[in-house]
Amino acid sequence: MKQIIECVPNYSEGRDKEKMEKILDCFRGKEGIKLLDYSNDINHNRMVVTLVGEYEPLKNAVVESVGKAVELIDLNQHEGQHPRMGAVDVIPFIPIKNATMEECIELSKEVGREIAEKYDFPVFLYEKSATAPHRENLAAIRKGEFEGMAEKIHEPEWRPDFGPAERHATAGTVAVGARMPLVAYNINLNTNRLDIATNIAKKIRHINGGFRFVKAMGVDLEDRGIVQVSINMTDFTRTALYRVFETVKFEAQRWGITIAGSEIVGLVPLAAIVDTAEYYLGLENFSIDQVLEAKL
Amino acid sequence: MKQIIECVPNYSEGRDKEKMEKILDCFRGKEGIKLLDYSNDINHNRMVVTLVGEYEPLKNAVVESVGKAVELIDLNQHEGQHPRMGAVDVIPFIPIKNATMEECIELSKEVGREIAEKYDFPVFLYEKSATAPHRENLAAIRKGEFEGMAEKIHEPEWRPDFGPAERHATAGTVAVGARMPLVAYNINLNTNRLDIATNIAKKIRHINGGFRFVKAMGVDLEDRGIVQVSINMTDFTRTALYRVFETVKFEAQRWGITIAGSEIVGLVPLAAIVDTAEYYLGLENFSIDQVLEAKL
Repeated sequence: MKQIIECVPNYSEGRDKEKMEKILDCFRGKEGIKLLDYSNDINHNRMVVTLVGEYEPLKNAVVESVGKAVELIDLNQHEGQHPRMGAVDVIPFIPIKNATMEECIELSKEVGREIAEKYDFPVFLYEKSATAPHRENLAAIRKGEFEGMAEKIHEPEWRPDFGPAERHATAGTVAVGARMPLVAYNINLNTNRLDIATNIAKKIRHINGGFRFVKAMGVDLEDRGIVQVSINMTDFTRTALYRVFETVKFEAQRWGITIAGSEIVGLVPLAAIVDTAEYYLGLENFSIDQVLEAKL
Repeated sequence: MKQIIECVPNYSEGRDKEKMEKILDCFRGKEGIKLLDYSNDINHNRMVVTLVGEYEPLKNAVVESVGKAVELIDLNQHEGQHPRMGAVDVIPFIPIKNATMEECIELSKEVGREIAEKYDFPVFLYEKSATAPHRENLAAIRKGEFEGMAEKIHEPEWRPDFGPAERHATAGTVAVGARMPLVAYNINLNTNRLDIATNIAKKIRHINGGFRFVKAMGVDLEDRGIVQVSINMTDFTRTALYRVFETVKFEAQRWGITIAGSEIVGLVPLAAIVDTAEYYLGLENFSIDQVLEAKL
């Protein structure tokens, strides 16, 4: 695979194994794409799929899977804890290797246009693909969910980017867009004082004056008797993991508290790991292509 | 590629492009292997090829390439600065992913047996595949080179492991074996005093009482006006890069000298980079499979 674009579509079906399998079959045994992972949550009644692939094969497989979801899933029958507005709720495209953000934006627009035409389906572009600032945030688009969308979609500021300005009777609507890879990164502190984790979270997160690409909150790890600064790194290429780690470390020193460890939840792009090693070893002229596995 | 074994065969031809291409063609367009890199040196008159692949396809392609080299290269005509004893001088197999050292030893023995039979060629097993301690070191086997091997191979302790106990008239002999991945890792010091780099090299290298899997020497980087501790990490899974880096750092402090940076030359397994990030970030429960590129 010369080019690697990641796609993490979310389907509003997490209970019916047969239906989930039919959706997953759109991604199996196809040249130029690979199904890396999927997980379904019964409470959320939702399935999250992780795919990688090249531009064209990825587009075709995702479009096919949307058709399958529209056919199989009826949002009028859907119950679950996770907010949702469509049979396919959200389709993010993420540049990983030999792919630019611009290509992923273009890909998201092609997919949006195609599924709107093919399945007579309203589509919103979000994140980097958004056509207006108030449409960047998925939560803002999705507010009101499937039920509320029947009316909301008639409001001028919520006209869909592609397809009819009418909620699909069973499949609702979908958000398609391009974004940077997220890294779920948590730092554990050698204390049980949640107020300290919360205080540090506020210092490092963007909304309170911290790093541009950090979302964070304090979390109690009761079973271990310690607390955690739980972080979403929304662009590790511009706010580096090590920078956040070192900052949490020197902020914790104010209370005489050390770091117990940190953890990366789920997948992480190689570039984030290489960046960390480069910083700590002071590596000169290192290229990600020197990593043997990156050449495969 | 589910299993990744690396192979870095060295051919005694670094000048004739046509001959080199014929050898490289053995590795192109084959299912289950990938030609990652090759470099030829005119002064050494030698070509170093880097391949990865799965057990069987790798074996077949390497055996084919040895046949090609035996056909094309006449050591009686070979001149170059690098010591050499055969048309194919050395064939190391290296476990990278989903492959054990035992499998690589077995693979090296199968390849050795097969090329000995097919091309009537004496073969020495070396490194982890060696059948006696004095045959582990490639330099010891190769001492005397192609010319000296005519007699040396008759000595009881230098009987080949496979094939006739006679040097091949044109292709000489070859060493085949399994070894851990080597990482060429250099640490640069903010001083021009070569004696300090040499002193630190001695402290960290195995031969003088240092780390088990470190070879090191001091090197003058004249153009930069600094010196370098030049290191071969012969098993980074047991002597970690970060441990050597931190040790060089605290040894340099004795002279009030800081580290200017470090460098990795050539390819490095992902595991070495992950290990570095794990140490510095204190990562808990991290698996190499969380690195997106490792799943491809």
